[in-house]
Amino acid sequence: MQSMKNNISKFTSASKIQLDEVNRILRAATVEPLDENTVLRAALDHHLLQNGSQSRAQLTLSAAKALGLSHNNQIHLAAAVECLHNASLVQDDLQDEDTQRRGQEAVWSRFGSNVAINLTDLMIATSFVLLAQMDNQSCLPALLTCMQRAIAVTLQGQSRDLCDKGATRAIKTSLAVAESKSGPLFALCLELPLITADKFSSLSTAQQAGNFFGAGYQVLDDIHDAENDQATENSANVVVVFSEVLSAKDAYCEAQTVARHYLARAQQLAESLPDNCAALLVQYCSMLTQQLEESEQ
Amino acid sequence: MQSMKNNISKFTSASKIQLDEVNRILRAATVEPLDENTVLRAALDHHLLQNGSQSRAQLTLSAAKALGLSHNNQIHLAAAVECLHNASLVQDDLQDEDTQRRGQEAVWSRFGSNVAINLTDLMIATSFVLLAQMDNQSCLPALLTCMQRAIAVTLQGQSRDLCDKGATRAIKTSLAVAESKSGPLFALCLELPLITADKFSSLSTAQQAGNFFGAGYQVLDDIHDAENDQATENSANVVVVFSEVLSAKDAYCEAQTVARHYLARAQQLAESLPDNCAALLVQYCSMLTQQLEESEQ
Repeated sequence: MQSMKNNISKFTSASKIQLDEVNRILRAATVEPLDENTVLRAALDHHLLQNGSQSRAQLTLSAAKALGLSHNNQIHLAAAVECLHNASLVQDDLQDEDTQRRGQEAVWSRFGSNVAINLTDLMIATSFVLLAQMDNQSCLPALLTCMQRAIAVTLQGQSRDLCDKGATRAIKTSLAVAESKSGPLFALCLELPLITADKFSSLSTAQQAGNFFGAGYQVLDDIHDAENDQATENSANVVVVFSEVLSAKDAYCEAQTVARHYLARAQQLAESLPDNCAALLVQYCSMLTQQLEESEQ
Repeated sequence: MQSMKNNISKFTSASKIQLDEVNRILRAATVEPLDENTVLRAALDHHLLQNGSQSRAQLTLSAAKALGLSHNNQIHLAAAVECLHNASLVQDDLQDEDTQRRGQEAVWSRFGSNVAINLTDLMIATSFVLLAQMDNQSCLPALLTCMQRAIAVTLQGQSRDLCDKGATRAIKTSLAVAESKSGPLFALCLELPLITADKFSSLSTAQQAGNFFGAGYQVLDDIHDAENDQATENSANVVVVFSEVLSAKDAYCEAQTVARHYLARAQQLAESLPDNCAALLVQYCSMLTQQLEESEQ
């Protein structure tokens, strides 16, 4: 998936200065209550050494800007989403036992499982506090509720995925897991700015757009990892699930069709959102669809 | 520590009806975004089957009532604190590898580590959402910031404790860990109602009272567990640390002196808080001090 992530990060609508500001306030809010020279601070700084694609921060900044939100609100919404995403990465690596993240040692591998668990907790809590630092407070309850919902649905997908690991999985279940695993956090990049701009009627469209994009992104990831996952019989991979009833070649084709469908739906919904606020998501959809077509040739 | 916890729960200032209401809205807010029949929901319901002492919910209800907060605010503040406490229990059991909680199987032991980790995340997020459901919203940013700080300091103490396990520990470090492990969440029971009542000038006293009470509570716990912890050379236990430089009997005496000191300080500070809002904490201090005296005879 590295190539896709690298490609995504090229669509930099946000300036490097803005992304640096997002990282700065994310870190500041996380370490604010901590003592110097503690293991939790060291683990955070280790994890933040490499930025990753920051695609979620960029989606959020882009939507918030299009909707006319203040600079302070743009930055804080992006930092909240990015902080939550980082929490999910630290936890995913632990739960999937991946020892590498962004070209360096994963937090759990370097500092132990307990520190990874604790850092995740802290970053989740900090995501909420970053919302509390916004200019206008009237929408704060709706923002918090939206964020908790996204966290809950992601954790539900994650729990289902981890508990079923190794078990034979129905295609329907497999796609439901793909939808809920990264969709809700992508949706959040649009939902939080829309709530702040008082555009509640667009929320369900934004949520669906994010879920479909997340599912497309996940299935593409599965296509990329299919060879490895076939070898380890990882039934969390959609291609592996398809190949139980189809030939290897047909399983790939079917997964590609599904991914294309998800991305097309996401793009269509994203285009319908107000003030062209999901323009960057539309670009991501095009780019991934193009990558899919190239892989089919 | 069972006897102390049982004793604490006897000081029921809150009615059973109120505590039931706290539990009901805590559960409702947690499961609201989840589908039926999911493992995360099953794990939550399993954990909530037994209530525990609910001493934190009681402290919060009692403080909120004394400060004249609305019924809705009393209940939601107590639910937020109790939800966070439950998150910490699920995580503590996993990290300490304790297989039993409240007379039944611990979540991680029954549903696996990953579900325990995910449930903790969800309950932390829900604690913030419960604050968002309060009547007046003007104090919401301050409430969120206060809660994140308490979480951060607790995690910092927990990380220090888990990373140092087995290592020889200085008495000073050992007491610092005791202070930060449960103190911040006890302090929260007073801080959140004080913030809602707009009594910001009392916050630092409330924080210190909570920290000292938490430390006293922790050292008493250590005295209770000393025999087991001596056998396993668990240097997280203050008595074990003292016994490295003192005779076994003197180590006990020293730990008792320290516990008495902490509880006296907590009581003194709690008594100075406005509207007698920490009256229940004062009662807890007296009760634990009395228990200490009985154990000395």
